[in-house]
Amino acid sequence: MTYCVGIFVQEGLVMIADTRTNAGLDNIATYRKLHIFEKPGERVVAIATSGNLAVTQSVLSLLSEGVRDPVTGEVETIYDTPSMFRTAQLVGEAIREVYRVDGKALEQNAAGFDVTMLVGGQIAGRRLRLFMVYRAGNFIEATEDTPYLQIGEHKYGKPILDRAVGFRTSLREALKLGLISMDSTIRSNLSVGLPIDVLTIRRDVFASELRHRIEAQDGYFQDLRQRWSAALREAHIAIPPPPYGTGVG
Amino acid sequence: MTYCVGIFVQEGLVMIADTRTNAGLDNIATYRKLHIFEKPGERVVAIATSGNLAVTQSVLSLLSEGVRDPVTGEVETIYDTPSMFRTAQLVGEAIREVYRVDGKALEQNAAGFDVTMLVGGQIAGRRLRLFMVYRAGNFIEATEDTPYLQIGEHKYGKPILDRAVGFRTSLREALKLGLISMDSTIRSNLSVGLPIDVLTIRRDVFASELRHRIEAQDGYFQDLRQRWSAALREAHIAIPPPPYGTGVG
Repeated sequence: MTYCVGIFVQEGLVMIADTRTNAGLDNIATYRKLHIFEKPGERVVAIATSGNLAVTQSVLSLLSEGVRDPVTGEVETIYDTPSMFRTAQLVGEAIREVYRVDGKALEQNAAGFDVTMLVGGQIAGRRLRLFMVYRAGNFIEATEDTPYLQIGEHKYGKPILDRAVGFRTSLREALKLGLISMDSTIRSNLSVGLPIDVLTIRRDVFASELRHRIEAQDGYFQDLRQRWSAALREAHIAIPPPPYGTGVG
Repeated sequence: MTYCVGIFVQEGLVMIADTRTNAGLDNIATYRKLHIFEKPGERVVAIATSGNLAVTQSVLSLLSEGVRDPVTGEVETIYDTPSMFRTAQLVGEAIREVYRVDGKALEQNAAGFDVTMLVGGQIAGRRLRLFMVYRAGNFIEATEDTPYLQIGEHKYGKPILDRAVGFRTSLREALKLGLISMDSTIRSNLSVGLPIDVLTIRRDVFASELRHRIEAQDGYFQDLRQRWSAALREAHIAIPPPPYGTGVG
């Protein structure tokens, strides 16, 4: 399993991904799922991946080496795209190309062709955008109304995002909320695990602001986990007991 | 969808169930999912159901009318069982009987034979117990280590139970925590909805202590939802911002 979240706010974009991959509970490894394609000042594009590791690695290789247009024969890489919309299209085309090559064999082996990606970033002169690209190669976009997108094990970390993240949330607060969301997921799903990769992109800067890996011994993340846990305990203690059926029984 | 939770603590047992059923988003109805079989002073058994409504209703009818033993020909109802263990077995046998009659046709219609039940309670002279019975008719039991069981949409409401519920939690606190868990689920999954049925059973009383339906306009539940939401907002505000990359960008 995997958990990745992208948060799209007025100040910029946060992307967070865990690094645990597994082929069964008895075969766990660490692989980077947050990939950054950057020419500072010109473009910064981040891709977070979930699904079959062979598929996601093939898609990323294609994006670096270039996807060939079947009509014109032209090859386009993720560093060539003129806009984030075209970048999301290119990711979709790369997924379809991997499906064309590997999809049938995977399905014959009951492995399933399984891939979903978050694609976020900004290219000079164009808008900051965040997309989720599905296994069919189609995609949706985060908006001011729903300013986050999740892939993988999304349920445990969704309540805090629903309650606390808005488009006006600051970039740093969005990063903190994304880490709380990741903490909730890690606590409840063994197949999501540390280290965590985080990225922030400030709007109209066309470069990453923060690229960081949070390891198990990270002091801030440990403190956040403890504070959040303590706050939840206090929160329910402060709620009065149910009044139903007092004196009954 | 459905969300039901049973919490098994030293003082007794809490059972909570929503009442929303749906056949597609355009066909939503209210059906009781928490069923109580009680002879005060002799036995109190509660069953919370999830899955295909036709299947769960058939199982409940069989439990009231009696399941025939294929060897002895004897008929046993849920009021006849000598222990909670035998009660869980009987529920499993009723599920297998409904599968024998309807299972194949359901699977041929791609509907799936889908049912899971929580079975909790106490019979005079025997122990208070809480079981989860699967569609195969087998079952597991809640223990002091993991003193709760969930069926249906379990993920959104699990973090608060993991963090706050222990075997020494009081019965009334367990009810409150169960309601917070239900609130988290209702907020995130449209197919889980009010009203909510709640039941508490105090250990060694052999009767229900509280049987109550919480409707949408219930003052306490509205207050709990608001307080919990406000507490979560305050909790994340009190956590310091991430220190990573300060001054960068």
